[in-house]
Amino acid sequence: MEKAVVVLSGGLDSAVALAFANNAGYQVSALHVNYGQRTELKELNSFNLICGHFGVFERLVADIGYLKAIGGSSLTDGNIPIEKGGVDPSRIPSTYVPFRNTHLLSIAVSWAEVKGASKIFIGAVEEDSSGYPDCRKGYFEKFNELLAVALVQKKVTVETPLIDLNKGDIVKLGIKLGVPFELTWSCYGESEEACGVCDSCRLRLNGFKAAGVADPIRYAH
Amino acid sequence: MEKAVVVLSGGLDSAVALAFANNAGYQVSALHVNYGQRTELKELNSFNLICGHFGVFERLVADIGYLKAIGGSSLTDGNIPIEKGGVDPSRIPSTYVPFRNTHLLSIAVSWAEVKGASKIFIGAVEEDSSGYPDCRKGYFEKFNELLAVALVQKKVTVETPLIDLNKGDIVKLGIKLGVPFELTWSCYGESEEACGVCDSCRLRLNGFKAAGVADPIRYAH
Repeated sequence: MEKAVVVLSGGLDSAVALAFANNAGYQVSALHVNYGQRTELKELNSFNLICGHFGVFERLVADIGYLKAIGGSSLTDGNIPIEKGGVDPSRIPSTYVPFRNTHLLSIAVSWAEVKGASKIFIGAVEEDSSGYPDCRKGYFEKFNELLAVALVQKKVTVETPLIDLNKGDIVKLGIKLGVPFELTWSCYGESEEACGVCDSCRLRLNGFKAAGVADPIRYAH
Repeated sequence: MEKAVVVLSGGLDSAVALAFANNAGYQVSALHVNYGQRTELKELNSFNLICGHFGVFERLVADIGYLKAIGGSSLTDGNIPIEKGGVDPSRIPSTYVPFRNTHLLSIAVSWAEVKGASKIFIGAVEEDSSGYPDCRKGYFEKFNELLAVALVQKKVTVETPLIDLNKGDIVKLGIKLGVPFELTWSCYGESEEACGVCDSCRLRLNGFKAAGVADPIRYAH
């Protein structure tokens, strides 16, 4: 059984990516990264519940709190407000965390290399996203080129099964793969219920609407 | 004054890289990364002393202890012995830390992007090295290609001023730039004095020999 590491924030997209790897027959290990984001407790709870649902026992929770110290993002700096006016494709939102995905993938790669996993799955989405540069297909292509020259065992690659899907299709794929959406957390806020108005909530709600199904989580708005 | 982030372990090469950036006129900030290596206390002490020597006040010490949890290297796993028989160019030594430089550079990049630094200096050496794949020129070329697609401000690049130098030339350059070699720590071991027989000590001693000067630090052997 081939091994794979799945980067699992606990949000909708990463849960679908995990279900995808699981369904493709990989022996899945799950990586969660705490980078000082506002929603860490919510995310970590979802991470563990989703792992439990899919029977993923090998889990790594890595703490890179220095990203919070570095700052520069509304996700890690409580003084920068999170946009709630809707996704604006013409600019990078304040929720962008500088170079974040390279940190997540680097941890996944080190773990994969030591445990002999050949694949890393990440639920990055280029369509219907907030426009982060490190969620684009060209970024992952370059990262895989880097892997080809950087490793000793030279056979780890990053897979992005959702990269070309829109949110409606991701929800549909999740339903087909039995993703427990009620366990996922996507909101950028830290309240008990999802806010319903941040970019992440808006994208998620649009996805359920497009798929023609109800989102099972509760919203404040 | 242009800003630069220098990755400074506290060893000889990184101290020369810092002196190089400083001499080139950059306003230098220094990054030290603790990844659970055996020699962390020695390195951190050298880091702070070298920064003090060059008047570098902006310092970031980032903790990525998860690399120790991931293991797979004699530098972070006390159960794996460190080679002491001499550098063998035909294989990757146990001191290789999987994908380590990508972790270090990712932290430097996030910091550089937030603070508006345009350059990252790292004292990687391809010649006279232990053969780590992420110390080769091809690795840094690919990393810079990744940066070109991954960032919002799109103008951070990694500089490797020592990459083509042998250890003798690095020592000579360090002398020219006023590097306080007595403050640096290169040994892979954790004893009071440098062991003199690990790969890192051997490479360093060969460098001083080739440069025709004495290494000011004390050795146990």
